[in-house]
Amino acid sequence: VSVGGSKRALLKVLDGEAVWPPPAWLMRQAGRYLPEYRAVRAEAGSFLDLCYTPKHAVEVTLQPIRRFGFDAAILFSDILVIPDALGRPVRFEVGEGPRLDPMTGPDEIDRLDRGRLLRHLAPVFETVSELRARLPRETTLLGFCGAPWTVATYMIAGRGTDDQAPAKRWAYGQPEALDRLISVLVEASIDYLEAQLAAGADAVQIFDTWASALDASAFRRFVVEPTTRIVTGLRARRPGARVIGFPKGVGARLVEYASATGVDGVGLDWGVDPAWAATAVAKPVQGNLDPLRLLGSERDLDAAVDELLAALKDRPWIFNLGHGITPEAPIAMVERLMARVRRG
Amino acid sequence: VSVGGSKRALLKVLDGEAVWPPPAWLMRQAGRYLPEYRAVRAEAGSFLDLCYTPKHAVEVTLQPIRRFGFDAAILFSDILVIPDALGRPVRFEVGEGPRLDPMTGPDEIDRLDRGRLLRHLAPVFETVSELRARLPRETTLLGFCGAPWTVATYMIAGRGTDDQAPAKRWAYGQPEALDRLISVLVEASIDYLEAQLAAGADAVQIFDTWASALDASAFRRFVVEPTTRIVTGLRARRPGARVIGFPKGVGARLVEYASATGVDGVGLDWGVDPAWAATAVAKPVQGNLDPLRLLGSERDLDAAVDELLAALKDRPWIFNLGHGITPEAPIAMVERLMARVRRG
Repeated sequence: VSVGGSKRALLKVLDGEAVWPPPAWLMRQAGRYLPEYRAVRAEAGSFLDLCYTPKHAVEVTLQPIRRFGFDAAILFSDILVIPDALGRPVRFEVGEGPRLDPMTGPDEIDRLDRGRLLRHLAPVFETVSELRARLPRETTLLGFCGAPWTVATYMIAGRGTDDQAPAKRWAYGQPEALDRLISVLVEASIDYLEAQLAAGADAVQIFDTWASALDASAFRRFVVEPTTRIVTGLRARRPGARVIGFPKGVGARLVEYASATGVDGVGLDWGVDPAWAATAVAKPVQGNLDPLRLLGSERDLDAAVDELLAALKDRPWIFNLGHGITPEAPIAMVERLMARVRRG
Repeated sequence: VSVGGSKRALLKVLDGEAVWPPPAWLMRQAGRYLPEYRAVRAEAGSFLDLCYTPKHAVEVTLQPIRRFGFDAAILFSDILVIPDALGRPVRFEVGEGPRLDPMTGPDEIDRLDRGRLLRHLAPVFETVSELRARLPRETTLLGFCGAPWTVATYMIAGRGTDDQAPAKRWAYGQPEALDRLISVLVEASIDYLEAQLAAGADAVQIFDTWASALDASAFRRFVVEPTTRIVTGLRARRPGARVIGFPKGVGARLVEYASATGVDGVGLDWGVDPAWAATAVAKPVQGNLDPLRLLGSERDLDAAVDELLAALKDRPWIFNLGHGITPEAPIAMVERLMARVRRG
């Protein structure tokens, strides 16, 4: 257990050190549960305008750090900025999820324009740079991207779906086409994450929200292998680059993901038993309180936090939720949660 | 590996014997992918009318046995007949899922009427009895019920939800109330399954479709413990009663579920790596081809089936899908699948 030193706490954990109490942040911590977020959101125009306007993106990223003093800030952005930058424009309609023109077939893969990626996403790198300048010295700054498979599910369907069936039909019916689309996304992700690290991010997270949709062999081909290529490619350009992988809902397949991809740490969704992860997963872990615990009783929240603390004590562990915090979460419950985590 | 004998193949597997090629059936095998099912469905009135009319329910249960010669028939019914029988009427609107009056609070638990359960569900037992008389002698007849937690998610929300949040708020905010609701459902499930076995079912399956929604401690309290009570209670009344449990999406927690509940076998959803299950799960298994494999290419279907056969060879295993077959599945692909499984 660490007793000091100048490396940021979250990075110590990713390097394999147990820190107590654990460094803590919350997925979607810059979000609608905060009145100050809703105020910026209301004046920012579209959701992508918010992501692409450094003044606004910096502000909403900093808000939860000011309020709760989390140990990490995560760049405010969206996993779909990559397709948007590749020439598949993304729009967010009010009360709906994201919308893109669905891909009509593999021939459209060749029309994706990687050449414009870094120019299109320049405001994101400006945001990262400004954040690093303004964050407290001890706060870790995380960049991120969506994993190729998860991004592909939106590109193929043109929207979020319950079962990711449109992309799964590619995976199970024309896997070579999906390989090609994913390869474009792998290369774009490496470019994108490298630029975030160059702009000042301390580490990056790869969100694979729909990794659970695939069966074992497709998981290996479209999740594990592409993630491995991102990690390897990124480290070839930036030796020592730290990466957290978060393949949601994959259960026991976390073991293979953690060892095969080369990530420094893995996110645990709330469905993972932390006591299992503590022994089965051979990497630092991050997670995994169910965000709906914040909508329950104080007594049951306390019990769940205590159980998590007991299960992961003495392990390299970053406290987090098992999924994004919901808009309904009461701020008082977040305060209660953080006080209890910090007590250790 | 079995070479003969009079016990039905699926029951041999549940008793721990490896049978090759494995006995096979498909979840939702009586369903909309079959034109003969759609014809009966069109003349049967409401969906519950179909479930409660033995003539129709028997016919649709037998249809896939006639067409494909599956090794098991599963009673055609719905997991929500229990709340319907307890005085929470269920309706199915066209193109929508089920609808019930949502439970407004725990006080409604005391108004559930267990006394009418067996009378209300008498047509189901008549269906089971008629099925046993008409099925080929070698075909296993499975009964089933929804697991208390999954049934409770529908009762509390009044419908299916993406995230089971209404029931999770009970789990995390007033767990004693949820305990009480689940206890009513445990007792009703024992009564219901016992009557199915008495009418001629060879074994029963407990479907816990939303088991994945809960975190580790709530999973233990609202999934593992109630399932254990059902298995124990059922066997107290019918010694040797065989039970398959299917907690969908629970990943590595399958190990605990399989050993703690006392079920004879566990269903594997398509997200479980069969090679992992073959070594980690100490019970006969059932599953787990992704139903969307039937919408892919013949080549990729063949490869997926071969991988599954290789992973579970020499294990007590019942071939099945990892979730219900979809209405879009082409019959020719089902035929191809079954021919390949039967080749072993």
